[in-house]
This record gives sequence, structure tokens and C-alpha cells, in this order.
Amino acid sequence: MKIGLLGGGQLGRMLLQEAMNWNLDICILDPDENAPCKFLTSSFSVGDLTDYETVLNFGKNCDLITIEIENVNADALMELERSGVQVYPQPNVLKVIQDKGLQKMFYHQLGIPTAEFILCENKEDVLACDKFFPFVQKLRKGGYDGKGVIIHHSKESLQQAFDAPSILEVKADIKMEISVIVARNAEGQVVTYDAVECMFDPKLNLVDILVSPAAIDHKLEEQAQALAVRIITEFKMVGILAVEFFVTNDNQLLVNEIAPRPHNSGHHTIEACTTSQFEQHLRSILNMPLGSTQQILPAAMVNIIGAEGNAGEAKYKGLENLLAISNIFVHLYGKKVTKPGRKMGHATILGNSTFECVANAKKVKELLTVIA
Amino acid sequence: MKIGLLGGGQLGRMLLQEAMNWNLDICILDPDENAPCKFLTSSFSVGDLTDYETVLNFGKNCDLITIEIENVNADALMELERSGVQVYPQPNVLKVIQDKGLQKMFYHQLGIPTAEFILCENKEDVLACDKFFPFVQKLRKGGYDGKGVIIHHSKESLQQAFDAPSILEVKADIKMEISVIVARNAEGQVVTYDAVECMFDPKLNLVDILVSPAAIDHKLEEQAQALAVRIITEFKMVGILAVEFFVTNDNQLLVNEIAPRPHNSGHHTIEACTTSQFEQHLRSILNMPLGSTQQILPAAMVNIIGAEGNAGEAKYKGLENLLAISNIFVHLYGKKVTKPGRKMGHATILGNSTFECVANAKKVKELLTVIA
Repeated sequence: MKIGLLGGGQLGRMLLQEAMNWNLDICILDPDENAPCKFLTSSFSVGDLTDYETVLNFGKNCDLITIEIENVNADALMELERSGVQVYPQPNVLKVIQDKGLQKMFYHQLGIPTAEFILCENKEDVLACDKFFPFVQKLRKGGYDGKGVIIHHSKESLQQAFDAPSILEVKADIKMEISVIVARNAEGQVVTYDAVECMFDPKLNLVDILVSPAAIDHKLEEQAQALAVRIITEFKMVGILAVEFFVTNDNQLLVNEIAPRPHNSGHHTIEACTTSQFEQHLRSILNMPLGSTQQILPAAMVNIIGAEGNAGEAKYKGLENLLAISNIFVHLYGKKVTKPGRKMGHATILGNSTFECVANAKKVKELLTVIA
Repeated sequence: MKIGLLGGGQLGRMLLQEAMNWNLDICILDPDENAPCKFLTSSFSVGDLTDYETVLNFGKNCDLITIEIENVNADALMELERSGVQVYPQPNVLKVIQDKGLQKMFYHQLGIPTAEFILCENKEDVLACDKFFPFVQKLRKGGYDGKGVIIHHSKESLQQAFDAPSILEVKADIKMEISVIVARNAEGQVVTYDAVECMFDPKLNLVDILVSPAAIDHKLEEQAQALAVRIITEFKMVGILAVEFFVTNDNQLLVNEIAPRPHNSGHHTIEACTTSQFEQHLRSILNMPLGSTQQILPAAMVNIIGAEGNAGEAKYKGLENLLAISNIFVHLYGKKVTKPGRKMGHATILGNSTFECVANAKKVKELLTVIA
């Protein structure tokens, strides 16, 4: 069976690391000729993931297609699906997820709690909304890692408003952000991982430290897991789905957004859980029995980010000091070039308590730097 | 830093899987153009590992050379070492280990317990030894995985004696075989893993099921670990060393043989220990701080072997049934061709007791077959 993967970045790289264990033949398409997966597969092609013809031609040679990034040409995938190629996650799910407007309407129709919102077409529409500050403007398409999002606190910031189809969302009164990863195979078997707590770096608007298990009560965790199961089941989606939630100050859950692929908030599963999210994704799309999601030890995960003021060929400083500390697992993604704020790797920290894990996660940030 | 690896088989493959996490650039030399590492590196060359010129030319482009098989041209490695390339394990250690006669003399000189032996040059010498049956004849050079070994029970079997330099060894009165893996970096830091028990398949004379921790008392385990530490320290060796012991019926340890590389008896460390033997090998040769060898859960390991009567392009039957059982971790090595008894992969089983692990290891053998 020939498997095609759209995207050859770090998620693809970690997927390949797992796929090696099962001797899977995965060919890769990525726009970057120096993508992290370049040397780890028998077949690496360079091409635009959003181009209809490119994706169609790549997929014709495959029995099964999956993704590591959702911003791909879903129309080409639909055509491939019609011609008999298995595509997981399914293109109709990608279509909804690629458009934050459709995503919000999907939640609305199903009564899944999410922050209240309106849709707007352009800057003019945003300027008209000068009565309910603060609110969040998110581009319907193409945003990622905090890009494509503006928080409007007052009339002044409206001048920076995106002039493109967006959703305007009530800024929720948030205590915490959590994420639940759920997987489903074609037979309909569904498993969920424990909820993880996402601590954001306010400057970079990136997940900074992730902690698992999240410091929430059991009932709230069950609610979050049930919502994640409901979403993947309603979509009849096959694969891994990360569901990000806001927890409001009055302990309500609001679905923020979802990603139909292995996710930054699941990296700790490689070392902390019986089945990693990458193996689970493979099990799902191959319609294998899903694996145990049991977490063995408390964990934290910290992204390793390109240092400020450094752009160019990446160098890693301090790895040796880090490796002197037990239970720190470093994953560098093999990106040739660093720039400020770029995700260059991550480290997972295991420990006897989440407190200990977070303390060591902070050490990772102090000890390891990525410079040019 | 450019690292060269002699050998691109399953050990190299698992080493590459770990090396990806640290973004290490490893180029590979292997005689087989379809070796398991072929597609997992930026640089894969085909060549004879025992040929002086081939190894020399390969190594000239590297800053550091390591091995996944000990049957390589040690003279070329010595020349590379003289010219400033780091070679770990060191070629002088390889010279001793490549020759079971020198290995035995090394133990003898240091007073390290090992089965009594004599050296012989040819079949004639063996035929002369018809008084102390049973004894074991082992080729001084080139044996592996039970090949190059004959047990002589009586005069009849002497007709099959190897006609080549060999050691003749008293057949020890063995209760059990165990293995201890030890690692040392250039600074002289040494760590050992817990002893593992090696259950051999008498038909194939291959490790069949491996269990960790071994069912031995703490004192014996400490003795085995101390001997392993002594051997690697006397050699001043850098890298991973597997030390295989016989445990006699009167509870004495005898060093059987050693392997200066990641070893079949350490595969369980990937899932069962904080630091896998492959990561530990990288830490050693890069002179990084060595990692914790703590074992998290009891483990068993079973080799996945080419089925009798099947030779040709490998197919795997029963993987799906296996993956339905929790805590079984399958590693297929990506070998194109199977033949009876060939190591095609392994599975590690974790559990709450070694009893549970061994029971599931037996299920692996029942459920998964490699056919042509």
C-alpha cells in the first residue's frame, strides 16, 4: 500500500519516525525543497499543496492520502476520493475546517458551545462593529499559529482590521485553554486522550508550555472529551482530531478551533502515553484497532523557538546542558533556517508531578537557544 | 558534524530514528543496496564494510565514525583515527572483539570469569581434543547469531568441526543467559542498564524471548553490572557495549561474549527505559551526558522471524490482530526479502509483570508471521 502525505514539516517527520516501525512506504509532497522530511522517505516531491493539478497528480499514484497541514487543495482531494483513493481526513471535513466561518456554523447547527460570533466580508463590515469591544477578528481562511488573528480593544485598532472574509468573535472571559485529542478509524472506533492545558506565550501567541494532565476537575474533562467525540463522530472523520477549548471563568467549555491531524498539543504523547498521537493517526487511517491512550507519567511540552534577532542557518546552543537533566526528550525538526519565533523543535519533560515538569520545561527555555 | 555509520541494517535504522530527534546528519555505508536504512538518510552508499579502501574512503568525509556491526575493516578505522577522525568504538577494541581468541585472552589476563578454553588452528587440532566432551567450538572470526558455533558431544560430531582458527570452550553448566548493557562516554562517565534474561530458541540458536528485569537476585545483578563496567573501562571504550553472561547452576557468572554496539538484548529499552540504548549510544559517542537507564515497566522482547519454508519478498500477516492488544510495540525492519529464521523485526511488550509480558510475547509469535 502506497501512502501519500501532504506536507513534509515536523508533523510529517514525526509521523515518518513512527511509520518506520511498521515498514510503511510514505511519499511526501511539500513546497519547501529543504523540508524536514526531505531525507526520510523513498519519495519526496516539491510542489504547491494548494494547487489543484499538483495535488491531483501526486495523489494519483497513491492508495491512501493523508495530511500534516490542513491548508491543502481539498477539491483535488475530492476528485481523488471519487476516483477511489482513500483520503483521510476526508476532503469534506477539510473544507469545513479550512474555513473558520463554516466551522463556526457547524458548531452552531449542532449546538456545540463556542464563542458567539458574526461573519463579515471586509474591513467595512468590521468598522461597523464598533459597539461591542473587545472582540476578536479571525480570517476565515489561511490563519495559523496566531497569524490571521487580531484582538480589537477599541476604535483605534480597527484601522488594522483585516480587509477579508472574517469571523468576529466575542472575546471570551477565559480562565484557561485546554486541548483534547481524539482519534477515529473507519470502523467507527473512537478513543480520546486526557485533556492537556495550553499555556500561551502572550508575545508570540504560540503554545508555550503544555501540561498534561490539565488542572481541571474530572467532570469538566469528561465534558471536553465528550464534545471531542461528538465532533469527530458528526464529521464521520477518520484520523486524529485536536479540539481546542476555552475554559471560561464560570467553568464553561467553548470550542475554539479544531485541527484534523497530529497537533502541537499532542507531542507529549510520544513519550508520555502508551500510543503516541502519530501512531494513533496511522492506526486510524489504516483502519487498525486504535491504541491505548493511557498516560504513564505527568508531562510538560515546550516548543523550541528561534531566538529573537536571529535569522539564518540554525545552530543549537545548550543541548548538552539540557541532556544532563533526566527525563527531558528533545526533538529538533531539522529545519535548515531559523527565524525569530519559528518552531524549530520541542522538548517533552516527564516527571512525578506536573509541577516538576513545568519547572524543568522552564529550564529547557533557559538552557537551549536556537541562533543563526 | 558529519557522522558516518558502518552498516545500514536494523540497528542502524533504529539509531537513525533516534538521531532524527537531534537533527544529526548520519551517512551510511552498507553492502546491501536494499538495506533497511536506505531511504532514511541524506547519504547512503553501497560498499564492502570489510574492504580497507572502501571504509577508508567512506570515513575520510566524516568527523566521527561509528558502527552497527563489528565485522568491519578495523585497519582502515585505525588509519582514519590516526588522521584525526573520531572512531567510536575504537578500532583497537574492535580488533579484540572481532577475534574470539583475543577476547578470551583479554578476559583471562584481567581475571574476568569466562568458560575455560583453548585455542586451536585447524580441524586437526580439534580432532585431537577427543577427551573432554561436550565442548563448544567457535570460529575465532566471523561468527554471528549462532553461526560459526558447533557443540561437539562425541567423536562423531568432530567430523563437522570447522577447519579454521577457533576456540574450544568447556560447555558450561548453564542455568540461564543474561545480558547487561553498559555505556561510556569519552569523559569516562559509565551507566549500566538492568540485566535482561535471554531465552534462546534451541532450533534457531537465536534469542527468542528476552525478559527484563531478569529473574536473578540483586547481588548477582550487581556482580554482572560490575563486570560489564570493568570490561568497558579496561577497554577505555566509548559507546554502547552489550555483555552476555552465562549463569551457571551454582550461580557463577561467566562472560560469554560482548558486542560493542546497540544489541538485540537492548531493544526493549526503546519503550521500557527512560533512555533507549540507541539514544545512549549517540550520547556516548558525542560525549554528551549519559541518560538515565531507569526501566519504567517490566518488559519482554520477541524477535519477529522469517517463517519456515518462506523465502522471497516479505509479507506480514496478523499485524492487525496484534495491534488490538495493548502495550505491544511492533518494529518491522523494512527488509525486502524474508528467509527462514531471518530477523525481520521485533516486538516489545510492556506489562505489570514479566509473567504478563512473556504471555503476550508468546501471543506475538502466534499472531504475526512473515511469509513470502
